[in-house]
Amino acid sequence: MSGNSSITIRRARRDDVAIIVAMLADDPLGSGRERPEDPLPPSYYEAFETLDRNPDIQLVVAEEQGAVVGCLQLCILPGLSSQGASRALIEDVRVASQRRSRGIGEHLVQWAVAEARARGCKLVELLTHSTRVDAQRFYARLGFKASHVGMTVRF
Amino acid sequence: MSGNSSITIRRARRDDVAIIVAMLADDPLGSGRERPEDPLPPSYYEAFETLDRNPDIQLVVAEEQGAVVGCLQLCILPGLSSQGASRALIEDVRVASQRRSRGIGEHLVQWAVAEARARGCKLVELLTHSTRVDAQRFYARLGFKASHVGMTVRF
Repeated sequence: MSGNSSITIRRARRDDVAIIVAMLADDPLGSGRERPEDPLPPSYYEAFETLDRNPDIQLVVAEEQGAVVGCLQLCILPGLSSQGASRALIEDVRVASQRRSRGIGEHLVQWAVAEARARGCKLVELLTHSTRVDAQRFYARLGFKASHVGMTVRF
Repeated sequence: MSGNSSITIRRARRDDVAIIVAMLADDPLGSGRERPEDPLPPSYYEAFETLDRNPDIQLVVAEEQGAVVGCLQLCILPGLSSQGASRALIEDVRVASQRRSRGIGEHLVQWAVAEARARGCKLVELLTHSTRVDAQRFYARLGFKASHVGMTVRF
């Protein structure tokens, strides 16, 4: 889908699910929510099948020398506002902890922004936890503005 | 879909598009982005057809005595995080300016949260512009936490 000399972005496959879950779990906020067990709970594979069938959702991974080192989910959402322009939502951005600060996250997010634009979106949005100050700085560097408050209810 | 003595929530129809666009435009942030003309630009109807076909998106209106007085869009998004639980995104919440402060917005949002829960979501999220302090208070009253920073890029 996209690549430079060392990092390739490609659609996630079923056999990437375990490594993606491991990255989601290797995180102060994610560690309490995930179950990176072997074998993985089947709910992860069920969710993968559901999202993989959805043409408006792209779960992608960053690959470096054959290893999955990052992930990102991009959703393209139709809506009436902004004259009926679609918008894009970026979620679940992670980079493997031993590979951070090497431009992998930047590569993933820039891919997502370009893809959103190519799909006709006028807006790309994301929520980043208030405690993730480094993430906010990272997104600001890539052109995002901290224009909104992200509000959540968790059941 | 849901109702109390005076307000009914129902799925939006094609012939609601003009009134929804009028509500989106009747707003300090929306006024510069929308074209509530007669006839409406066809892009609005094209977007309506696209979202109306999507089983994971529900654009609903609040109706009071036969009049459309509010709207909300709910998206159900599959994903791997939180053990493969879907999450819900609420967007484009509006109440007609002459009908505010009468519980219509509350009714819409409570419908969306209940629907998200019924569809198996573990999380409901939304972005509200930093300047919409009243909206933030409103969502906090309905159980939302201002847990995240909402970041955006607009093209």
